[in-house]
Amino acid sequence: MINPEYVGFFAATLTTSAFLPQAYKIWKSRSAFGLSLTMYMVMATGTLSWLVYGLLIKSPSVIVANSISFSIILFIITFIVRSKK
Amino acid sequence: MINPEYVGFFAATLTTSAFLPQAYKIWKSRSAFGLSLTMYMVMATGTLSWLVYGLLIKSPSVIVANSISFSIILFIITFIVRSKK
Repeated sequence: MINPEYVGFFAATLTTSAFLPQAYKIWKSRSAFGLSLTMYMVMATGTLSWLVYGLLIKSPSVIVANSISFSIILFIITFIVRSKK
Repeated sequence: MINPEYVGFFAATLTTSAFLPQAYKIWKSRSAFGLSLTMYMVMATGTLSWLVYGLLIKSPSVIVANSISFSIILFIITFIVRSKK
């Protein structure tokens, strides 16, 4: 039987890296114009909740995936808030 | 001790609903102009892998969250592919 954590880390790599192009674009352009603060706040709360869930069920891949996603989303939110000033 | 599945379903509601405004916008405008097919293909493969992971570790919230997310992403991909024709 396949180790579920292999599948989990494969999934984690994909869903985490899906946020990277957006983060890179913000970093290069130094602007977060057009991005929805509401959407990213929902995403941040969601990934933080998944992180708590991962800790509760002791799932390494859920913990790692959502820690990284949450960090990237927090970075994006920082830029959106700065852009609004 | 709190039931982890409550946290999981709370997280699921948030991360799933984050895709809804995009799906709604596509449905209303009948256009997926500007959306990255690559990003949504990566997201689709990622959520499908999380779904397999959820089945392997028998986690109800991971299974439900990723089934719904995968369906919404598939809907978005259908429109992106149609737009490219």
